[in-house]
Amino acid sequence: MITRSQIKLIKSLQIKKFRQKEGLFIVEGAKSLQELLLSDFNIKKLYLTHQFINQYEKSLKRFQSIIETVTEKELEEAGSFTSNNAGIAMVEIKPNSPFGFGEREYILALDSVNDPGNLGTIIRVADWYGISKIVCSENTVDFYNSKVITATMGSFTRVRLFYTSLPDFIKKARVKVIGAELEGKNIYQFSFPDSGLIVLGSEANGLTPDVKKLITDHISIPRYGNAESLNVGVAAAVFCDNLRRFQGLS
Amino acid sequence: MITRSQIKLIKSLQIKKFRQKEGLFIVEGAKSLQELLLSDFNIKKLYLTHQFINQYEKSLKRFQSIIETVTEKELEEAGSFTSNNAGIAMVEIKPNSPFGFGEREYILALDSVNDPGNLGTIIRVADWYGISKIVCSENTVDFYNSKVITATMGSFTRVRLFYTSLPDFIKKARVKVIGAELEGKNIYQFSFPDSGLIVLGSEANGLTPDVKKLITDHISIPRYGNAESLNVGVAAAVFCDNLRRFQGLS
Repeated sequence: MITRSQIKLIKSLQIKKFRQKEGLFIVEGAKSLQELLLSDFNIKKLYLTHQFINQYEKSLKRFQSIIETVTEKELEEAGSFTSNNAGIAMVEIKPNSPFGFGEREYILALDSVNDPGNLGTIIRVADWYGISKIVCSENTVDFYNSKVITATMGSFTRVRLFYTSLPDFIKKARVKVIGAELEGKNIYQFSFPDSGLIVLGSEANGLTPDVKKLITDHISIPRYGNAESLNVGVAAAVFCDNLRRFQGLS
Repeated sequence: MITRSQIKLIKSLQIKKFRQKEGLFIVEGAKSLQELLLSDFNIKKLYLTHQFINQYEKSLKRFQSIIETVTEKELEEAGSFTSNNAGIAMVEIKPNSPFGFGEREYILALDSVNDPGNLGTIIRVADWYGISKIVCSENTVDFYNSKVITATMGSFTRVRLFYTSLPDFIKKARVKVIGAELEGKNIYQFSFPDSGLIVLGSEANGLTPDVKKLITDHISIPRYGNAESLNVGVAAAVFCDNLRRFQGLS
């Protein structure tokens, strides 16, 4: 059973202010939970259906003491999913730890990306293309937003995010800074350097002026039709795809 | 002003059954409306704010007789946007007309794509890469769903969709049938033929068996990390990008 006060806590974690106060976030649904159980996140509480418990008995062994058996109806009342036959986890937020560049490494940088679905898609894309670090401007949507977590389809367990001042990060990075822009050199003709930062801006406004000044390579995806722009998740994928293809052929 | 009965009609058009009964769909928000005004869609009614009317005076001249001036509050009550300072249009649905292949043409095929945001993204991607036709299985989400229209960012005016039995369409097409699959040949090494059909399935289930049987080229986007799959909108973009890049270099 989930008590009233637990439901209230879970619901409050939909809001960033309360996530920060409690140091907790929630993970919902079968796919995300499966990946969570295999990750190094510190899980505080698992509200799970009988069905999910039976199906993942082995992975759940070490979590016995924090499992609460609940019904689908309780999950749907407490969580944000209209249907959830698996569970909800309450998980500890990780510290916002800085990172730098490894050898021959590519990192993604997000400049004011507001939409949680887009951030989730970008994390999933990064995970597909083997990019494990994303640096985000402070006004980029919160990683621990439950819509972000859900949209990553489990990739939130494998990609590290660091929120900071992008201009400061870029100035310290000492790598090529590749900006995804509408007016730039054709990505099909671009020789990707050994390592670099790929910077993506918001769909509505592109890169912010302070970031734009620091771009060393302004690169565009060629357009063959009439759409004004591409979704930022899509642009991230096309950049990663061109990078990996270039590296594979060179 | 929007009358009670008009609000009821607009709201009913959120549901496919009522769209089909009335032969109408709705378009909301500034970007979609701007593109709609320039398109060949038959607009039946425009509910617009003063602000939008002043800004697009010229494009609106020929629509004088069907414009109703409304407030933002009325738009938000009638429509699906939480904020809308532009307007809502009621527009005639086009007939579901078949199409075939032009010379050296690529068409996208969608096999059971359910998510309206994904369909909208795919239409926008097609428009960016100069692909103007998408054939959809009958169970693919309805083009005229207002979430689809909104997610296209105006590209719904430039891309034609045709709903039909995919196996029947493929059998008649006489082109190479390229399936986006998890297990297939590396897309980076694929020589795209002069024309072809690129078939994308649902994220959850991939291609349906009857469609899979008809694929001539099973093609995959190489994976470098650990995500299990890519979002279907993202996969569509990576396929179109590889196609145009191949054509540009060959």
